[in-house]
Amino acid sequence: MSESRFAKLPKPPYFAVIFSSLRESDGNEDYDAMSERMLELAVKQPGYLGVESARDVEKFGITVSYWDSLKAIKQWRSHSEHVVAQEFGKSQWYKDYEVRVSEVKYAHGKPIE
Amino acid sequence: MSESRFAKLPKPPYFAVIFSSLRESDGNEDYDAMSERMLELAVKQPGYLGVESARDVEKFGITVSYWDSLKAIKQWRSHSEHVVAQEFGKSQWYKDYEVRVSEVKYAHGKPIE
Repeated sequence: MSESRFAKLPKPPYFAVIFSSLRESDGNEDYDAMSERMLELAVKQPGYLGVESARDVEKFGITVSYWDSLKAIKQWRSHSEHVVAQEFGKSQWYKDYEVRVSEVKYAHGKPIE
Repeated sequence: MSESRFAKLPKPPYFAVIFSSLRESDGNEDYDAMSERMLELAVKQPGYLGVESARDVEKFGITVSYWDSLKAIKQWRSHSEHVVAQEFGKSQWYKDYEVRVSEVKYAHGKPIE
C-alpha cells in the first residue's frame, strides 16, 4: 500500500466530522459501491479537506472527514446523492452510528527523525 | 460482543482527541499490555468522558477519546505513565501518527425506530 492513509491537512482551525458506526453483518451488497461513490463525490465538494477511515474485523469503524467550514459540512450533508446514501445507512447498513461535528483547534504528528 | 463500542457522552460541547496511527508490522510485543494499561488509566483521569477505537487489517487505526475540557486533555497528555507510552509509540509502535484536538459542537446518532 503506497498511498498514505493520513489526510494531508492545512494548519488548524478546520472542522472534523467524526462518524463512528457498527455495520450490519450481512445484506450489505451495495455498501462498497455506494461508499466508494460517496468518497468520489465528497472529494469534489467545496470545502472538503480530506478523510481518514478504519474499520475492524468486528465491523466497528471510524471515519473522520475534514472540512474548511461548518457550512461545507452542512452542504455535503444535504447533497441529494448523499441524502440517499444516508437513508440506506439508517435502514440497511448500520446497526448503530454516531456523528460528531467538531472544530479542530490544534494538531501535531510524529516528529520527523 | 455485548458491550457497546460507542462512547456514552453528554450533550456537546465537549472535546475530542482524534488519534490516527499506522502500527509497525512487527516488534509490538508490549503494545497490547501498554494499550490496555493506558485505557485503564485514562478512564480514571479527571474530565475523561469516553473512547472509541477501530484498527483495520492494514494496521491503520483511529482512536477518539472524549474529554470535558482542554485542560483535562493537557493533564492526560502529561501524565507520567502516559508520557512513557507516548515515547514507546514514537520510537517503536507507530510508523506514523497524527493527533488532532477538537471541540465537538454538535452530535446525533441513529434515530430510534
